[in-house]
Amino acid sequence: MNFSKRITSMQESPIRKLVPYAQAAKAQGKKVYHLNIGQPDIETPSLFMEAIKAFDEKVLAYSLSQGMPELINSIIDYYKKYDMHFESDEILITNGGSEALLFSIIAIADAGDEILVPEPFYTNYNGFSAAVDVKVASITCKAEEGFHLPSRKEIEEAITPKTRAIMLSNPGNPTGVVYTKDEVYMLADLAKEYNLFIIADEVYREFVYDGLEYTSFGNIKGIEDRVIIVDSVSKRYSACGARIGSIACKNKDLMKEILKLCQGRLCVPTLEQVGAVELYKTPEEYFKSVNDEYEKRRNIVFEGLNSIPDVLCKKPTGAFYVIAKLPVDDAEKFTIWMLKDFDVDGETVMLAPAEGFYATKGLGRDEARIAYILNENDLKKAMAILKKAVESYPGRKI
Amino acid sequence: MNFSKRITSMQESPIRKLVPYAQAAKAQGKKVYHLNIGQPDIETPSLFMEAIKAFDEKVLAYSLSQGMPELINSIIDYYKKYDMHFESDEILITNGGSEALLFSIIAIADAGDEILVPEPFYTNYNGFSAAVDVKVASITCKAEEGFHLPSRKEIEEAITPKTRAIMLSNPGNPTGVVYTKDEVYMLADLAKEYNLFIIADEVYREFVYDGLEYTSFGNIKGIEDRVIIVDSVSKRYSACGARIGSIACKNKDLMKEILKLCQGRLCVPTLEQVGAVELYKTPEEYFKSVNDEYEKRRNIVFEGLNSIPDVLCKKPTGAFYVIAKLPVDDAEKFTIWMLKDFDVDGETVMLAPAEGFYATKGLGRDEARIAYILNENDLKKAMAILKKAVESYPGRKI
Repeated sequence: MNFSKRITSMQESPIRKLVPYAQAAKAQGKKVYHLNIGQPDIETPSLFMEAIKAFDEKVLAYSLSQGMPELINSIIDYYKKYDMHFESDEILITNGGSEALLFSIIAIADAGDEILVPEPFYTNYNGFSAAVDVKVASITCKAEEGFHLPSRKEIEEAITPKTRAIMLSNPGNPTGVVYTKDEVYMLADLAKEYNLFIIADEVYREFVYDGLEYTSFGNIKGIEDRVIIVDSVSKRYSACGARIGSIACKNKDLMKEILKLCQGRLCVPTLEQVGAVELYKTPEEYFKSVNDEYEKRRNIVFEGLNSIPDVLCKKPTGAFYVIAKLPVDDAEKFTIWMLKDFDVDGETVMLAPAEGFYATKGLGRDEARIAYILNENDLKKAMAILKKAVESYPGRKI
Repeated sequence: MNFSKRITSMQESPIRKLVPYAQAAKAQGKKVYHLNIGQPDIETPSLFMEAIKAFDEKVLAYSLSQGMPELINSIIDYYKKYDMHFESDEILITNGGSEALLFSIIAIADAGDEILVPEPFYTNYNGFSAAVDVKVASITCKAEEGFHLPSRKEIEEAITPKTRAIMLSNPGNPTGVVYTKDEVYMLADLAKEYNLFIIADEVYREFVYDGLEYTSFGNIKGIEDRVIIVDSVSKRYSACGARIGSIACKNKDLMKEILKLCQGRLCVPTLEQVGAVELYKTPEEYFKSVNDEYEKRRNIVFEGLNSIPDVLCKKPTGAFYVIAKLPVDDAEKFTIWMLKDFDVDGETVMLAPAEGFYATKGLGRDEARIAYILNENDLKKAMAILKKAVESYPGRKI
């Protein structure tokens, strides 16, 4: 039996394929500090479960395909705080940010079309695109430049007649970069000039440190009809398991088209929407305290990395990720070695090798992503272990 | 801004596009009996919400991409009762049967490939296929034959070198047909001869009346590697809003490919899975009583339809749908007329016009689907109203 070319060409999750090594390490009795995944340890606001527990309808019925009106209203109110103004038919509730991305790609690109993405990027951008025969064309960003965008000219050179959109996360997963106002406006300008959509994955919007200014594509005048904002409750409210995302877009015609895809899958789970309505009402203090916590962690990881000789890492300013260039032959081999052959008093560390975050072959081989989703003490221990590992790794370069 | 051809070519849900007429009728104070949608009125077993209310983890984390092991085990146990034996890597949990269908189509068909579907069919089969550039090729089934399959020869004539699978629901939505053992084995044989997959949507498996024997594709020897069984808790446990579905397939290589799609969207909601674990343990008595209820309703609708002169309707034996051929010029016009211009003591009926369930242009124009998801009394009233409507409709034929 043959499978489709599009599915066989999809790469396996580069993060998940190392899971068996972690399992084996644990089976040997090793403690593994997981710096490889984006699952925060912050508690989900309790009002989520409280709302769900209060649900008392006898029949768990389909909800509306576009999403529950109450949730759409909650999201409209949320965006208002950022001076973004959406009407109810300009919001669609999706199964996580994932479905929002998939539906956006299907709606704007046909088989063979291209979407331009700064690399390194969230690997599932490539996965969703491949699944529906859309090619990811990359704009290479470099560790040396803190993963900021290259020049306008370099980006223009990557645009072809088949390019339909620029897709990016800001703040960035996996890089932790927060694009400057100039960068965001440059992309907006390119979108206008080359008639492209912008799929703006802004799920980390609140995770910005050092008092930095954040520029959303939703605040730029003159490109409203080409900006598709992808959002999710997963990271903002530490509710990854809820799978509630959304698309916000002022292009009502596009939203009508995407609604057809929503109707095809009938609806998003009712209970999770009931809970999410309350999440969007979470008071500002919550973000402040979560933000302070992540900023502290960011500092621990950044200082830890820079205390390791020959590690290259510019200070990340957003999300809860950083990509470091390590003095190793191959970050995947290094990660496997740490799990299989290394420990400090029975403890080791798991990283996410970064090669899989690049579309360009050969890039990122000596880079790894660290997610700072552990508490301060564990993070400090993990960074000390990583330092020793880099020092004693047989495949060490430099 | 241009949208993709695949999205603009997707038809709008033929059922949902009439909703504004129903809303207007209600705004006028009319009572509308909804026979147009498949939302059952049966109560969801209470153990679903009980399990969710007992969930007490502080962080609502991602679950595994393939689904919670407890739920996979529940489903394995469920299938054992039907003498189908799956291992844990032969089950994947999905966002409803909808995602199970979409992922199956992506995994076995490339852009331009074809999937053979008996028509009239569940419209979203066409929607999902169009969204990923797969063509639905149809095998026409007729009201006069109770929507049973045509001859083997007719089906063979529809198979082309691009055909990758046969996809069908059994018991059938929208027809209520239950395929005979001979029909199921004929399709299995064709799948072997022409090297096709079978995407068997068996979500209505328990909804079979008149003591009829039901043949699942999961029980046929020799085609295990080509049978993909799509399942869902929506109808079986009246839990449409839970959006928990699954794929069961003995072809482990295929399941590894589909797992990549599951990893791309990270996971299915955690809480709904916690509840679904319990749903799959629902005692047999539940099905017996639900079945008795639906059989009674089926009888009311069938007798009601056959008391209307010139209506053609063979007795349906499964699911909770029936398609009737009506003596009208156009079932959509008739439905709109009932909502806008007709009532019996302030009450009217809404049907689902069947033309949208056909891929072949022009078929089904005088047919409508009735879902018997109302209680006996309401159904009796609705059928009496329908009878009067057919008698007084200005576009009446015959």
